[in-house]
Amino acid sequence: MTDKTANQMWGGRFAAGPDAIMEAINASIGFDKRLAAQDIAGSRAHAAMLAAQGIISDSDAEAIREGLLTVLSEIEGGSFQFSTALEDIHMNVEARLKEIIGAPAGRLHTARSRNDQVATDFRLWVRDQFDAAEGGLLALIRALMSQAEAGADWVMPGFTHLQTAQPVTWGHHMMAYVEMFGRDLSRVRDARARMNESPLGAAALAGTSFPIDRHMTAKALGFDAPCANSLDAVSDRDFALEFLSVASISAMHLSRLAEELVIWSSAQFRFVALSDRFSTGSSIMPQKKNPDAAELIRAKVGRIFGANTALMMVMKGLALTYSKDMQEDKEQVFDAADNWMLALAAMTGMVTDMTARRDNLAAAAGSGFSTATDLADWLVRVLNLPFRDAHHVTGSLVAVAEKKGCDLPDLSLAEMQAVHADITEDVFAVLGVENSVNSRMSYGGTAPAQVRAQIDRWKARLG
Amino acid sequence: MTDKTANQMWGGRFAAGPDAIMEAINASIGFDKRLAAQDIAGSRAHAAMLAAQGIISDSDAEAIREGLLTVLSEIEGGSFQFSTALEDIHMNVEARLKEIIGAPAGRLHTARSRNDQVATDFRLWVRDQFDAAEGGLLALIRALMSQAEAGADWVMPGFTHLQTAQPVTWGHHMMAYVEMFGRDLSRVRDARARMNESPLGAAALAGTSFPIDRHMTAKALGFDAPCANSLDAVSDRDFALEFLSVASISAMHLSRLAEELVIWSSAQFRFVALSDRFSTGSSIMPQKKNPDAAELIRAKVGRIFGANTALMMVMKGLALTYSKDMQEDKEQVFDAADNWMLALAAMTGMVTDMTARRDNLAAAAGSGFSTATDLADWLVRVLNLPFRDAHHVTGSLVAVAEKKGCDLPDLSLAEMQAVHADITEDVFAVLGVENSVNSRMSYGGTAPAQVRAQIDRWKARLG
Amino acid sequence: MTDKTANQMWGGRFAAGPDAIMEAINASIGFDKRLAAQDIAGSRAHAAMLAAQGIISDSDAEAIREGLLTVLSEIEGGSFQFSTALEDIHMNVEARLKEIIGAPAGRLHTARSRNDQVATDFRLWVRDQFDAAEGGLLALIRALMSQAEAGADWVMPGFTHLQTAQPVTWGHHMMAYVEMFGRDLSRVRDARARMNESPLGAAALAGTSFPIDRHMTAKALGFDAPCANSLDAVSDRDFALEFLSVASISAMHLSRLAEELVIWSSAQFRFVALSDRFSTGSSIMPQKKNPDAAELIRAKVGRIFGANTALMMVMKGLALTYSKDMQEDKEQVFDAADNWMLALAAMTGMVTDMTARRDNLAAAAGSGFSTATDLADWLVRVLNLPFRDAHHVTGSLVAVAEKKGCDLPDLSLAEMQAVHADITEDVFAVLGVENSVNSRMSYGGTAPAQVRAQIDRWKARLG
Amino acid sequence: MTDKTANQMWGGRFAAGPDAIMEAINASIGFDKRLAAQDIAGSRAHAAMLAAQGIISDSDAEAIREGLLTVLSEIEGGSFQFSTALEDIHMNVEARLKEIIGAPAGRLHTARSRNDQVATDFRLWVRDQFDAAEGGLLALIRALMSQAEAGADWVMPGFTHLQTAQPVTWGHHMMAYVEMFGRDLSRVRDARARMNESPLGAAALAGTSFPIDRHMTAKALGFDAPCANSLDAVSDRDFALEFLSVASISAMHLSRLAEELVIWSSAQFRFVALSDRFSTGSSIMPQKKNPDAAELIRAKVGRIFGANTALMMVMKGLALTYSKDMQEDKEQVFDAADNWMLALAAMTGMVTDMTARRDNLAAAAGSGFSTATDLADWLVRVLNLPFRDAHHVTGSLVAVAEKKGCDLPDLSLAEMQAVHADITEDVFAVLGVENSVNSRMSYGGTAPAQVRAQIDRWKARLG
Repeated sequence: MTDKTANQMWGGRFAAGPDAIMEAINASIGFDKRLAAQDIAGSRAHAAMLAAQGIISDSDAEAIREGLLTVLSEIEGGSFQFSTALEDIHMNVEARLKEIIGAPAGRLHTARSRNDQVATDFRLWVRDQFDAAEGGLLALIRALMSQAEAGADWVMPGFTHLQTAQPVTWGHHMMAYVEMFGRDLSRVRDARARMNESPLGAAALAGTSFPIDRHMTAKALGFDAPCANSLDAVSDRDFALEFLSVASISAMHLSRLAEELVIWSSAQFRFVALSDRFSTGSSIMPQKKNPDAAELIRAKVGRIFGANTALMMVMKGLALTYSKDMQEDKEQVFDAADNWMLALAAMTGMVTDMTARRDNLAAAAGSGFSTATDLADWLVRVLNLPFRDAHHVTGSLVAVAEKKGCDLPDLSLAEMQAVHADITEDVFAVLGVENSVNSRMSYGGTAPAQVRAQIDRWKARLG
Repeated sequence: MTDKTANQMWGGRFAAGPDAIMEAINASIGFDKRLAAQDIAGSRAHAAMLAAQGIISDSDAEAIREGLLTVLSEIEGGSFQFSTALEDIHMNVEARLKEIIGAPAGRLHTARSRNDQVATDFRLWVRDQFDAAEGGLLALIRALMSQAEAGADWVMPGFTHLQTAQPVTWGHHMMAYVEMFGRDLSRVRDARARMNESPLGAAALAGTSFPIDRHMTAKALGFDAPCANSLDAVSDRDFALEFLSVASISAMHLSRLAEELVIWSSAQFRFVALSDRFSTGSSIMPQKKNPDAAELIRAKVGRIFGANTALMMVMKGLALTYSKDMQEDKEQVFDAADNWMLALAAMTGMVTDMTARRDNLAAAAGSGFSTATDLADWLVRVLNLPFRDAHHVTGSLVAVAEKKGCDLPDLSLAEMQAVHADITEDVFAVLGVENSVNSRMSYGGTAPAQVRAQIDRWKARLG
Repeated sequence: MTDKTANQMWGGRFAAGPDAIMEAINASIGFDKRLAAQDIAGSRAHAAMLAAQGIISDSDAEAIREGLLTVLSEIEGGSFQFSTALEDIHMNVEARLKEIIGAPAGRLHTARSRNDQVATDFRLWVRDQFDAAEGGLLALIRALMSQAEAGADWVMPGFTHLQTAQPVTWGHHMMAYVEMFGRDLSRVRDARARMNESPLGAAALAGTSFPIDRHMTAKALGFDAPCANSLDAVSDRDFALEFLSVASISAMHLSRLAEELVIWSSAQFRFVALSDRFSTGSSIMPQKKNPDAAELIRAKVGRIFGANTALMMVMKGLALTYSKDMQEDKEQVFDAADNWMLALAAMTGMVTDMTARRDNLAAAAGSGFSTATDLADWLVRVLNLPFRDAHHVTGSLVAVAEKKGCDLPDLSLAEMQAVHADITEDVFAVLGVENSVNSRMSYGGTAPAQVRAQIDRWKARLG
Repeated sequence: MTDKTANQMWGGRFAAGPDAIMEAINASIGFDKRLAAQDIAGSRAHAAMLAAQGIISDSDAEAIREGLLTVLSEIEGGSFQFSTALEDIHMNVEARLKEIIGAPAGRLHTARSRNDQVATDFRLWVRDQFDAAEGGLLALIRALMSQAEAGADWVMPGFTHLQTAQPVTWGHHMMAYVEMFGRDLSRVRDARARMNESPLGAAALAGTSFPIDRHMTAKALGFDAPCANSLDAVSDRDFALEFLSVASISAMHLSRLAEELVIWSSAQFRFVALSDRFSTGSSIMPQKKNPDAAELIRAKVGRIFGANTALMMVMKGLALTYSKDMQEDKEQVFDAADNWMLALAAMTGMVTDMTARRDNLAAAAGSGFSTATDLADWLVRVLNLPFRDAHHVTGSLVAVAEKKGCDLPDLSLAEMQAVHADITEDVFAVLGVENSVNSRMSYGGTAPAQVRAQIDRWKARLG
């Protein structure tokens, strides 16, 4: 007999009929309660401004502002009863305020609308996330810099096409990621500056005839200015889309580092040892250590870019101004922000904890005639051979070494001169992995001195 | 003074350190508890098979199977204590089973692994959703057919480019959506049939040396067969991706109908009246009725296709077999399934409740020389004019009517003959909106008789 | 008999065997020839630097630089023979250079690699597109401002949920889009500044042992600095992804305006008349004018965000440094850039040419008790009624007007006082569409004076 | 001095003014000429039907049908002059037909419209691509089966989390991909069957008053039936979206195999040798072989899913019926189809050419105590230990082996019995890689006999 799987089937799920369906699709309190603190901050600023402009009395404003603090403490303390019938966070807060302070609560909604209110709340929330992202990126950058500093001169293979190309240094590789997350940081700052304008006072869409002071509320909430056009203020979600774009690119960077950690942890590479904290083991195969955290981080770019896709598609082709479609903005951004922060934190932990296996890195760096390019460059630089000829000579020397079963530095001068008579003893100074990396002194190159210079520039930048 | 917005900042959020971060990113019990019924069904089938094959004793199997029912009733009753330390639904259920039945619980995990277990659970869950989607699509199709049947001969403007093109019938327009949702239904059925194979018994990845009977567990769980390759069985998520693809296209259909309802509800169109249940009003503007449900449905395609994007990106480039990245599959599918079902239900409700404003539809259908094409076709058909000449004559007649401030049927025969002498009294039989729609008797055309025939074919198909 | 459709079927398409397949998938010259000018600019800068640093002779450098100009003129003149066997633009140019100047051509590739070369070329190309986008956005902003200035005080309905909400002004609505495209402009500038670093000199991945001067080539190519890390320089495509993100958001804005133009052009709305240039007509229905350009622009957000999705997915999880996957970057960016520019140009043309139908806008603005909010606000502001009470009174008055078949300004004072005795003659000053929009004097509000102030701020900003 | 990069800047690009812009955005002949054969096939079927129904004369029909063959041969021969002024393929063909046969050409467009014509053409084209995909998938499946058959018993490591988990066979791994591409094949067939309906005769949108026979044209073009609703017929693009969905999932499968080939080709893995044809080498590092084709294939999922995203976004929220937005459908599908076919062909070539390095695979399979699970299973199966106890004993034995520096089969019986006294000589039969894989005889398991059975089932299925 087949077990009957407990399944919320069509009939059951929506048995309650149309009203239940409408409530399910329409109510937002299930998620927008995360905006409680921002909502209360916005309302407190609004009330203070209304009083300052003589639109409501000082005593009403004071009652409202105190009452809102009480509501906030109830929410933060967990005693607040959220009601789905009240639809959203704004109505929930206002209804409770009325219970606490009575009539004056009715004056709070003067000269504003839910349209500018939710736009304000959500902007404040996203702004906080930009700040949180800045913190997370800085922590990860510092963790990478610590690895880079410790291993500025540890050699490892540099890859193109996942094939060994030339030797590079561990520090150089770590600093490549610092550049990536550094660009993310720069994007975060630009985006935060751009979005830091206040929608409050746009009212439903057209502004208001009350003599409000939008600059005052903007300033109180830490905005640089009020939004310049009230229609745009209530219909704009660029700040959310730019947040998702920035997060997506950053998550892509995380996915690349995560991929490397997964590959480097394989039995075939063994380039790094991840800490137990960010891996899971097997009870019977003690040598097995699954890089779970790296894999989960690798996946987050999908989730975050999926949210970006979702909101782009929601906003496509929406006539001005506010449409209810836009209520779909919050869950996407909440989820993306949570997962970006989590991935940054997990990656920071992993990078901090991981150990480079220096011997394996060095052994891999030296294999595969990885300094053949150095030899070719020496032929150009010292013997003045044209580039293509130098390549030909190098290829012949590699063939000799391969036949002999040794690497390039192991050839004798005589063996080399048999291929090209002008080669001198000096050539050995550029062969060998250490010589190779030390020689790449061009700006931003892999030479330890260059890596340290790059680290110093970042230290100066971070202050 | 600026209000301090309560913000879960970087420092605060992850203050608990690496272990808390790892638990946050790694544990899945927060969402995979939705698989409880499927997990227990799978385990019960597995235990029965182990006993039938002599791998465990009948009494152990019986204890396990009874114990699992107890666990299920605890979960369904809400008394079950989920533990994050136990990571996922599988471990939570197994741990509780051990508390209830003791030692025999330890035999349940013989010849299986979490890899095939989660693949089985998730398939069962997705299969249930295909069934739920079938129900939802059928309900919506029936609602549309009711509208179509009532208004098989109500005329309305047919649009291309949102410009009036030719008159069509309300029933015809409704039935266009029946075709779309009918294709969705067909995709649901194909996809369900394709995915109905059992991963159970693939074990970790390679199969097992225990003499299990995968056909028996497959049958017990309603699968058509066991998956044919154990490596594929644990690394495949096609069934989830195909679910998301099918749901995405269906949600796109919903977005088109929702867009039409929004436009049709505008003061400028007034083609339909939505019920109060699926709209929200204004306390001061009684004539205003916001089509909230339609807007929210329109947005769902973003959310659902966002989930599709997310999982496609997660699966991109994953080496075989199971990788932890794949844990990101469930939340995307859960969310997409919930929202698809909800959107189908809400649309069904809206379509059922809505009222076509027949007068407005008819008035709009007759405006703008909408039967000019009928006139041109008559000239081709009866007078045997070449198509391009017929167009020219029609254009001239429209110009005459426009100048006179009337529509084509209002011209006199003399006025027509002044433009083309061969026109006869018969032409009036094709002018006018009613005549126009009645004449379009080609298969699938807008003539009421064709619409009714299409409805009848669907009735036969639905049984 | 069925016509055989001429189809490049499987067998036929790849009949030439593996070598043809590899050439088809591997060669990039079919599209990267668009980088010719950038490639030659980069090579000329590189040659000059090599000579300045004494790495090659001045005469070789001069020969190379002159020869490259010859190649460029051949390409621009259309006489250049591109060869697929030479794979890409870099090899095509270099091979032709060798034909023209002989041996010195072989020295050009000293101290660089195709990895840093293509990264440089592509950055230069993308930088040009940022500049082109700036031009396109400015042109569109100016077109919108012209419309806004002409119609700063033309009244029209302001919509939420596509339902008439409150009267606004045409100028205000146009300026909402100026804000959107203004943010796009700001993003373009930020992104251009961020990406303006030179990869040249990163060589294959590790830098070089030649004593090159990366600052010199960076400066010659207009970059602000060399990229700080050579590994990152050759594996980074953030500049392309950020271009696509910025373009996607901008295209979303275009889709919103395009949607409005399509709706406004319908027979039901008739808010605008588009010019013949950006519409297509019908030979028999002269009143029909399809808003083709608007529809095509509306669609472009899909195409551009599709390119964004494509490149995000390509870059996901790529191990450092260069991988061939990255060759997929160019076609996506080329196509997105072309379509963004085209959509901006077409929208600029449409906005410039379009005519607002002032009478229709005004008539629509005044319907539907659109000033009910003004009445309610007056009750709060003047009679000091609490907000909720004011709503109740307004609702009652609307009901009276509806029953009487008139609008609010048409009620007598007596009729108003019957509902609330304290209402005075002054109330009529806020009723009526003109009064309503004039009263919304809050910063960024819809009052013509506010709109003109917003226009003035933009004029100052644009200089 | 900075070189001036030749840049199609804003001013230059659109200097020709609005008309040039409109032509650039509106004309489709640049890409829809790929539909020429389909367009002509559709027109020939239509003409034959018009004559059969007595709507046009037999001689006109014959002239049209012959003339169209002439046009087709001109196009296929390359002598046809496409004109942008004629906008699209339909007008280009019809105009040329008129030049060739004169007046009768004017009768071809009777009882049809460009709306149903383009829908028919595009469906025929997409249907051809489904057929081409079937061919491509079958070729790849056969190549994989050849590899599987040759190496049904070659051992290799089975991975989870890219960590060695248990030994599997090469044949088993190849057959996992056969299952994936087999599901793609199944999706291709379902989708092709679903979309095989003819839009021809839907006319502009409403059907026609001419007595056409849609079943006749449907049959002539190989369709199973005419589309059932004319409004749906001209506004539906499901067939294109389903093609893109199916292609996307298939491209994801390709990306997974490509990723494995890249990793397996690394110096650290060395599991396979790719042929020179599908790799590129280095002139100085003869051992280096870049897996270019694999990388390019890995990237294609981005491009193809990008096209899916683009078209989903285009179709979102489009009111019925035809809108010009839908013209964006073709380039996306063309590009996705080309790249899917190319990726299938390249992968087929690579799989056919590649050589498994059996020694490396075997050595890797045997490392890392990969048969620990077999030992644990033996303890459960033979000694009847509970699963968790068996794990504990196995862990202890692995620790002993690790300390001794050997693998499990190298321990003596005495050493084993020191950990658990009941262990017998029989245990050695399950240790060792060969024994391990041979023992996994569950259906679909990795035992060579199971692999061969799976291959046989596929052979029977392919016929």
